[in-house]
Amino acid sequence: MKSNFFVPLTPRGLSNISPPPPWHYAGDFLVIDFWAKPEAVASLLPAELQADAKAEGHAQAYFIDWQFTGEHDEFLNPARYQYREFFVLVDALFNGKPVAYCPYIFVDNDAAMARGWAQGFPKRLGLVFQTRTFAASGPASPKLAPGGRFGASASADGQRIARGIVTLEKAVTDPAALGSRPTINMRHFPRLAAGQWERPAVHELVESIMDNFKVADAWMGKGELTLPECENEELSDLAPVRCGNGYRMSVSYDVTDLKTLVDHSVK
Amino acid sequence: MKSNFFVPLTPRGLSNISPPPPWHYAGDFLVIDFWAKPEAVASLLPAELQADAKAEGHAQAYFIDWQFTGEHDEFLNPARYQYREFFVLVDALFNGKPVAYCPYIFVDNDAAMARGWAQGFPKRLGLVFQTRTFAASGPASPKLAPGGRFGASASADGQRIARGIVTLEKAVTDPAALGSRPTINMRHFPRLAAGQWERPAVHELVESIMDNFKVADAWMGKGELTLPECENEELSDLAPVRCGNGYRMSVSYDVTDLKTLVDHSVK
Amino acid sequence: MKSNFFVPLTPRGLSNISPPPPWHYAGDFLVIDFWAKPEAVASLLPAELQADAKAEGHAQAYFIDWQFTGEHDEFLNPARYQYREFFVLVDALFNGKPVAYCPYIFVDNDAAMARGWAQGFPKRLGLVFQTRTFAASGPASPKLAPGGRFGASASADGQRIARGIVTLEKAVTDPAALGSRPTINMRHFPRLAAGQWERPAVHELVESIMDNFKVADAWMGKGELTLPECENEELSDLAPVRCGNGYRMSVSYDVTDLKTLVDHSVK
Amino acid sequence: MKSNFFVPLTPRGLSNISPPPPWHYAGDFLVIDFWAKPEAVASLLPAELQADAKAEGHAQAYFIDWQFTGEHDEFLNPARYQYREFFVLVDALFNGKPVAYCPYIFVDNDAAMARGWAQGFPKRLGLVFQTRTFAASGPASPKLAPGGRFGASASADGQRIARGIVTLEKAVTDPAALGSRPTINMRHFPRLAAGQWERPAVHELVESIMDNFKVADAWMGKGELTLPECENEELSDLAPVRCGNGYRMSVSYDVTDLKTLVDHSVK
Repeated sequence: MKSNFFVPLTPRGLSNISPPPPWHYAGDFLVIDFWAKPEAVASLLPAELQADAKAEGHAQAYFIDWQFTGEHDEFLNPARYQYREFFVLVDALFNGKPVAYCPYIFVDNDAAMARGWAQGFPKRLGLVFQTRTFAASGPASPKLAPGGRFGASASADGQRIARGIVTLEKAVTDPAALGSRPTINMRHFPRLAAGQWERPAVHELVESIMDNFKVADAWMGKGELTLPECENEELSDLAPVRCGNGYRMSVSYDVTDLKTLVDHSVK
Repeated sequence: MKSNFFVPLTPRGLSNISPPPPWHYAGDFLVIDFWAKPEAVASLLPAELQADAKAEGHAQAYFIDWQFTGEHDEFLNPARYQYREFFVLVDALFNGKPVAYCPYIFVDNDAAMARGWAQGFPKRLGLVFQTRTFAASGPASPKLAPGGRFGASASADGQRIARGIVTLEKAVTDPAALGSRPTINMRHFPRLAAGQWERPAVHELVESIMDNFKVADAWMGKGELTLPECENEELSDLAPVRCGNGYRMSVSYDVTDLKTLVDHSVK
Repeated sequence: MKSNFFVPLTPRGLSNISPPPPWHYAGDFLVIDFWAKPEAVASLLPAELQADAKAEGHAQAYFIDWQFTGEHDEFLNPARYQYREFFVLVDALFNGKPVAYCPYIFVDNDAAMARGWAQGFPKRLGLVFQTRTFAASGPASPKLAPGGRFGASASADGQRIARGIVTLEKAVTDPAALGSRPTINMRHFPRLAAGQWERPAVHELVESIMDNFKVADAWMGKGELTLPECENEELSDLAPVRCGNGYRMSVSYDVTDLKTLVDHSVK
Repeated sequence: MKSNFFVPLTPRGLSNISPPPPWHYAGDFLVIDFWAKPEAVASLLPAELQADAKAEGHAQAYFIDWQFTGEHDEFLNPARYQYREFFVLVDALFNGKPVAYCPYIFVDNDAAMARGWAQGFPKRLGLVFQTRTFAASGPASPKLAPGGRFGASASADGQRIARGIVTLEKAVTDPAALGSRPTINMRHFPRLAAGQWERPAVHELVESIMDNFKVADAWMGKGELTLPECENEELSDLAPVRCGNGYRMSVSYDVTDLKTLVDHSVK
């Protein structure tokens, strides 16, 4: 029997928006390095983080085709649990240590949105797509080989918020090239009672914990990214000044924990 | 300038998933009275509520076409804020007082999902549709008149979870006929840290507060509802033993508060 | 029993993508007058039509919330048959007579797409939204009154292709103000056989026929429209040089016929 | 420059719903053999085809994750051109020769719907999902190995129309095991003019032509399929009496031609 980690709270837990941890993930990643205006990055950071001057506005855009499962073969129900995601990580410092902070993230699935909120990822709904590669070769399928090209885009509420292209150049032999800053989120849940709106029930700086992290078929090359100007979308303020490497890889990991760095939750 | 009531937390608050309260709503309602097996209703109730034996399993299904606005003309951006909703309320008792508890609710919009979670509504994503009436008459538009028929359906993850029909008989002259039990939710937000999964950060029984409640063009008649058997959807356990009245009306109200009845949040 | 007007062709016709005519429609319209560059309009016209020099690039943008029904109460199944639509009509001449030609149209429903193709409307899928008014008044619902504002937007493949606002000033007392050019389409269906790609199976200039046309609650005022620049969307070439009136009304009509003006279908 | 094979007909052809042929495809297939009631299969066949008595109601269900491209790198724009598909093929005879006829097919993309109509595939919109495998191993990703399991589902208008599971047993060494009946469709496009509804503009029995057909990573095992009872969906009439093998493979091919078998188009 499943327990009710999220809502709705039901007798058998089957209707719960997502099964409880452990959460298992596998996915295909398109990642693009880019540099935004440093002041745009700095303006997004919570008070507990400091701007990373050496990073010069460095950030990364991720487009991911995800598959999720809990402990009950949820991967066999892709209509409910498979999803696509777009997010940005910006370089920052926490107590002088290099970290990556997630200011924006969009998914096309409610189970992923709920898990994200529990982790502190500030998820909204969006539509996200990326080019795939298939075992059967042909003009419709780019190869994992020099010159292979992969496109991606993300939209929210009918506005295109991001567009990317990665052109492969070489296989990644040293996974360290993929970066290793810890991912930092601000976990947050409001209070609605009158007079309590400024006293969120949950407001804590957290560090993501990913176990059994595996990377396969990692390639790198040229990355191109645009973050078009949109009505009422501040993501546009991170529009790339320049772009850097692009990456395409498969990744899997598990989530069963979360580390609280600073807890401002109002008791 | 908007504040950041929800996530993401941004400089201007424009990217926030929903503006802060006050929240203003207007919508068209299709409501169907039905009776489920009393034990199915009882099995859904949190420990703080008691089964309402006199209700004999009475519940109501709501299909709503909603329009939302905050304080910055959000109603002019319907792609982001207009939405549709399906939910069930079941009769129960709190300290001996008749209340209505919401075990299941589905919306097609993330801003509505976020506000719902803040209110304790256990929202998941779904697709919801209802027949509309238009000022220009003709075969495609039912009239608010005896014999007028309105259909509705809801689905989640590609499974149809509810189907309803309301056939109008007469205008509602006494709004009291529409019922007046307070709406009770279990506001809930988990902890992900290892060892803390059973200690939710937020777990409180709350009562919804709706101000400036207005009803217009209320009609009643015959209600028909089915809750089809679905894979891993416990809503099906509430399948109607019999149906009662159906209602069709327009409603508006504001939300700026929430009343905590019992707070089990773990400090 | 339904017949199989479209595909799929099935024993009972219930699975057909749309029921056969007669087709009945009711909807809420937001309409915005605008002027594009005359050469952009001219470049869209089929050879059988001529540019309307006096129109100076005049066009109209329509955002519509539609309800459809055939002869078997299809309006009671809104998940399958209710839909939203955005299209543009540009002024042109046919044999010297003023007409309106439809170069672009987007709907969120496949039954509507099929009927549109049969009528010659060049429908693609899109997401379309417009502000609604509700009988229950309040901040979330604009009134049909001076100062009432209605927003709308349309997107295709995650790109916003249109955004409009109509601010009401006065009721329309003379329906002739709403315009009355016949709607002209190019009905077109290709051949796929090798060597036949340039010989479409259907290619005929047609005039839409709408019976029992009714308008209710028509208001007019100021219209504002943008057609943002999008990747690979030529609609952007019609970007307004200036905008004119905006309209908001309810409309109903029936479709049971189509008039062929010029038939180029290859036998 | 692109030509306008479909609608809309525009100066540069970029807005056309799909680029012209050649059409290139690559995809992941889940295929399940099943047997329906022979009379249910027979009732679906057009007059030009005969029931295949030896087949005893044999049919196949296909769930496919597709990537499409034309000649202009359309695979780099997955938001517009990548899609998912579900269809059924039933065994039949044409002039005594074994063929497979497509009575039902659903896709989540309008470009695919348009191309399908041109080929005679009777496409409607639906949502289709299948379990994927990823290069990075872990609990969320089934392996192409004995015991690997893949789930799939399809829905239309919010009703689940199909659910399947394939459990792998062994690699397919002889591609002939995958079957080789030609695919037969009824290409059909109506006339709307009054009095002409029974005289479709296009009505021809056609055979699909696929060039450069490649299969990779083909596995077979046990197939399980249900076609649940749905409101107004005749697909349910093909509900499996029993199921047979399941297959999982990658496939690519090109389409540039179509063979007309019998042409009933009304001139």
